[in-house]
Amino acid sequence: IEEFDIIERYFAGKIACAHPNIHLGPGDDCGIFTPLEGQDMCISTDTLIAGTHFPLLCAPDIVAHRSMAANLSDLAAMGATPFAYTLALTLDPESATHSWLDRFTDYLEEIGGRYAIALIGGNLAQGSLSLTYTVLGHVSEGQALRRNTAKPGDDIYVSGTLGDAAAGLRFLQGPDSAPDKETPHKETTALVDRYYFPTPRIELGQSLQSIASSAIDISDGYAADLAHICKGSSVSAEVWVDDLPMSTALVNYAGEAEALTLALSGGDDYELCFTIPDGLPESAMQELEEICPVHRIGTITNQESVLTLKDEDDEPYTIKTEAYRHF
Amino acid sequence: IEEFDIIERYFAGKIACAHPNIHLGPGDDCGIFTPLEGQDMCISTDTLIAGTHFPLLCAPDIVAHRSMAANLSDLAAMGATPFAYTLALTLDPESATHSWLDRFTDYLEEIGGRYAIALIGGNLAQGSLSLTYTVLGHVSEGQALRRNTAKPGDDIYVSGTLGDAAAGLRFLQGPDSAPDKETPHKETTALVDRYYFPTPRIELGQSLQSIASSAIDISDGYAADLAHICKGSSVSAEVWVDDLPMSTALVNYAGEAEALTLALSGGDDYELCFTIPDGLPESAMQELEEICPVHRIGTITNQESVLTLKDEDDEPYTIKTEAYRHF
Repeated sequence: IEEFDIIERYFAGKIACAHPNIHLGPGDDCGIFTPLEGQDMCISTDTLIAGTHFPLLCAPDIVAHRSMAANLSDLAAMGATPFAYTLALTLDPESATHSWLDRFTDYLEEIGGRYAIALIGGNLAQGSLSLTYTVLGHVSEGQALRRNTAKPGDDIYVSGTLGDAAAGLRFLQGPDSAPDKETPHKETTALVDRYYFPTPRIELGQSLQSIASSAIDISDGYAADLAHICKGSSVSAEVWVDDLPMSTALVNYAGEAEALTLALSGGDDYELCFTIPDGLPESAMQELEEICPVHRIGTITNQESVLTLKDEDDEPYTIKTEAYRHF
Repeated sequence: IEEFDIIERYFAGKIACAHPNIHLGPGDDCGIFTPLEGQDMCISTDTLIAGTHFPLLCAPDIVAHRSMAANLSDLAAMGATPFAYTLALTLDPESATHSWLDRFTDYLEEIGGRYAIALIGGNLAQGSLSLTYTVLGHVSEGQALRRNTAKPGDDIYVSGTLGDAAAGLRFLQGPDSAPDKETPHKETTALVDRYYFPTPRIELGQSLQSIASSAIDISDGYAADLAHICKGSSVSAEVWVDDLPMSTALVNYAGEAEALTLALSGGDDYELCFTIPDGLPESAMQELEEICPVHRIGTITNQESVLTLKDEDDEPYTIKTEAYRHF
């Protein structure tokens, strides 16, 4: 398959670029758009490499979903509304069959439609499979959420449940996922789905814009990402580990102690960790909870240690494994 | 070296992000900027892979220059002014030494300063060396140059000289560049420099904005890129091959016939090919020529064949080699 055929057939000619502010999508030297009035723009870029960030023999819909969701999650963490993206795709010509490209771009179109983000440009290179997305979002001027603005006394919250994606990955990498094994239990499938098909918390991020003092998405692991907020804001955090939200599927799969380790240090959940100044009206919290579950799990403090973990008896809890390292 | 150390030491903490409209550079989930009033934005992304797009054992300043210049050239082709860029860098930890990173980012800072483009975000992944830049530029609303707007009767122009970069690459890949050979002749060095250190025609592009009917940058090869204009605009082109601008260094290195082939089909020159409606005042052309040499080399027509090449006797000229294929 030829470069320009692929671009024409699967990208420029297939994936709609339907935003009134986008004047030119893929196919020229650049894409062109008129920025939205009164809005700042947020931009983020992320590379996912087959064999490192997702399994080598991954279905194309998983590749498309996981890579896009990881990028959208960065916009969610700023409270931004998705606008447009570029995709620099490196493909191995041996495995880039028409059926692979067809499924991949079908799914890309589907998830792009779901989150209202338009393909505005791209690049195609030859090599082993990797994807670099650059996503653009918009947010009211001066209102983007940052990680360096938490204050002592703020409450710490997290969305959804933690550790599921890490447990899903552990299952996939272990002997129980071998093709000759029985079909995994429904709960294990749910964990694997959390790893393969994470949900970027776009709507939650938008609602947090006016009420949170800081936010970050959980890609490195909960403890590591909360530490980024603390270091960025020159504060510390106290977290009650027994309040960390964990799914029944996770606890059943890993046992309670190991589940807690996964919740604290496993990456890839793409939940949001955010801080809220003390005294938020109950009604505002209820509005957030209508979008997705959120749990208060600690307090921003002003202590020496960046992160203090406490168990139910108010005793220090020690984390057993390290965060996932991208490099 | 650790991921966050590299980001802090060589990117977020080193490369200045000094544009009044950029509120947040690398280090958070996204970079944040306020778009310039009355301006459209142009965006382009491009991946360069060691061993494919530049030699495997390339000096870090060559990697930094060539990759950035290739991306800036896309902005030049739209007539846009560079604004900001993200860099998704995949590094092999074995070769990503402090001295490599130091030289690479020194040079990145230098060329970023020269073209007034600010680093606004990035990503670091582990793997064999590749770079994906996404560049943003701005241009007066509705004024971006496109490749699909040429009209029959327009004159075809090209900047600088053609084929030098392809000749430089040929020299590098041939036996004459082996380490035990004599230092190459000064003229050969000039060709290699055209390949390693291309000049994005930013200023020319900006000046073309109000006078050209279409533009493209030459990355695939002159004939291939002019064909993109023709196909995009549903027109055809007649080119007088004897008017193609070629450097003395190229003709001396390759001989006249082979030089012409390289000028027509060699990629990587990053010159601009553009069309101008008939009747442009001589003064406007003089203003362009003060920026860099420009040469009229053909006419947009309305014939059946996309591209007709004519020699000095007005006889058809047949191109001997194919364009460089990215995929």
